[in-house]
Amino acid sequence: MTSPDPTRSATIGNSAPPPAADRPRCFQDVILRLQGYWAAAGCAVLQPYDMEVGAGTFHPATTLRSLGARPWAAAYVQPSRRPTDGRYGENPNRLQHYYQYQVIIKPSPPNLQDLYLGSLRAIGLDPLRHDVRFVEDDWESPTLGAWGLGWEVWCDGMEVSQFTYFQQVGGHDCRPVSGELTYGLERLAMYVLGVEHVMDMPFNAPDAPIPLSYGDVFRQAEREYSRWNFEQADTDMLFQHFKDAEAECHRILDAAETDAAGRRIPMAHPAYDQAIKASHLFNLLDARGVISVTERQAYIGRVRALAKGCADLFLTTEAATGADKEDAA
Amino acid sequence: MTSPDPTRSATIGNSAPPPAADRPRCFQDVILRLQGYWAAAGCAVLQPYDMEVGAGTFHPATTLRSLGARPWAAAYVQPSRRPTDGRYGENPNRLQHYYQYQVIIKPSPPNLQDLYLGSLRAIGLDPLRHDVRFVEDDWESPTLGAWGLGWEVWCDGMEVSQFTYFQQVGGHDCRPVSGELTYGLERLAMYVLGVEHVMDMPFNAPDAPIPLSYGDVFRQAEREYSRWNFEQADTDMLFQHFKDAEAECHRILDAAETDAAGRRIPMAHPAYDQAIKASHLFNLLDARGVISVTERQAYIGRVRALAKGCADLFLTTEAATGADKEDAA
Repeated sequence: MTSPDPTRSATIGNSAPPPAADRPRCFQDVILRLQGYWAAAGCAVLQPYDMEVGAGTFHPATTLRSLGARPWAAAYVQPSRRPTDGRYGENPNRLQHYYQYQVIIKPSPPNLQDLYLGSLRAIGLDPLRHDVRFVEDDWESPTLGAWGLGWEVWCDGMEVSQFTYFQQVGGHDCRPVSGELTYGLERLAMYVLGVEHVMDMPFNAPDAPIPLSYGDVFRQAEREYSRWNFEQADTDMLFQHFKDAEAECHRILDAAETDAAGRRIPMAHPAYDQAIKASHLFNLLDARGVISVTERQAYIGRVRALAKGCADLFLTTEAATGADKEDAA
Repeated sequence: MTSPDPTRSATIGNSAPPPAADRPRCFQDVILRLQGYWAAAGCAVLQPYDMEVGAGTFHPATTLRSLGARPWAAAYVQPSRRPTDGRYGENPNRLQHYYQYQVIIKPSPPNLQDLYLGSLRAIGLDPLRHDVRFVEDDWESPTLGAWGLGWEVWCDGMEVSQFTYFQQVGGHDCRPVSGELTYGLERLAMYVLGVEHVMDMPFNAPDAPIPLSYGDVFRQAEREYSRWNFEQADTDMLFQHFKDAEAECHRILDAAETDAAGRRIPMAHPAYDQAIKASHLFNLLDARGVISVTERQAYIGRVRALAKGCADLFLTTEAATGADKEDAA
């Protein structure tokens, strides 16, 4: 086992919750156990971000909150839309809409690896009975101007999580470094539950009055989005909305910092929403096959410029520094 | 106590979970208890919808799934954005972004009221020790073409939930009728936790290594969105995007039902996303004060036409009927 070697000083979750004796019975049970586990470890259990994103990292709870010195510990599910991964609901483990579970703690605690292994126990995977390996795999997001030292976590030969120490986000050095864990929930749950096709996975308890499979909840939508993403989405509209989001983001970032009443209000969050929209519009255009290889890098660079501008501005706010500048003014 | 008189036949959650003896300690604890309670009652615990909406009812898990004969039971949190309600983070209980907890069960079970009272016990509110009243208040959403027979639930003189039997959604009669419960989470949690200002409410456990208040998580964003919503959002862009979403919705609804490979794929979900976007864009324009009283009704009617078109199409799919038409073809 290659071991991450965290040397940070926080003390979150020193007393790991007890291992769960029993096994989860359904998809939502895996999620509820992770929520309970990370809540007991001290994290704020947040809700998913209410915008279309490609990964949990895009949630401002990670992108923005990994910046600055203010301590932070959060865990959440994030619906992740990856248009190019759609397979009309027919592939056993590939979806254009799936769920990530994300944990982000700043500064990264020294016992993060133990905490992670405890979370596997909480969903019925005893690391002593399975072959759990940490395989070095540094992470980079060109869109977010972010990278980190990282490991893939493999369980019995299958990747079940990613483990990253953020070095840069939005082009800024992370001081202190955040620890990020990302679980691919469907894949992990299918493994824990012993299911071969994602659509067959029980979503709620199999003995519930109205038992629902993952397919009952998502099959129809997977078919429909696969068709829209690949064949139908209006590309003229998507191109225009990308430009609009980009322009609105820059405009918000450039707006004077004081509002009509003279309050200092830099608008990093509304600006970042436009960066998120631009990123998803790019992903939709990519799925429609209308972005050439040469244009691709330019689009990614344009989104990165937005993310960087938002990071710059966010770093001036109390949410990053812990100092309430409005009150201090 | 005015009592809802449900006469439906489902049997979900006949054995109510045991009451919780202890009180929640923080906002996320209230949410996790509701999740655990409704999971134990048999609901599928879904994730919030990843789009900006004004209420949990807009989640397709309610709007679309309340249509058709197929049984359904779901519970979820929904981030709700109501731009006109922003108060720059300064009002003790008014926010432009807050959370609803939503339960939707079709057909509505005869014991829905008992289940609801059990959920109050689960978060530490014993109905025998508090004055819980059901006050008749029928519900209507002109935007969704929906209405229902309803009750507000008051606890010790404060509204804590809404209780609705859907009669129509998207202009269609609901057969069978769904029962819907909506909890305003911040207000309910503030009451349970005895907090006067929402920003002071503990978000995670007060003795966590990194304790976070609701204000630590949301104050900065509330200020920023209040400014953007009221003062800054580009209204030309919002007007244009409303038209674009409307046009894209109609175009998707009108697209031939078979895809390039000849599969029957009516795209109700992607179309409904555009209806959601139109609805939120209208709310943003409303907050910017650029929609006159006379225009208002016309905009609401245009969104309703989209919602109705999506409902019409959704009703032809397996997700509504339970019959997999593709496989049957």
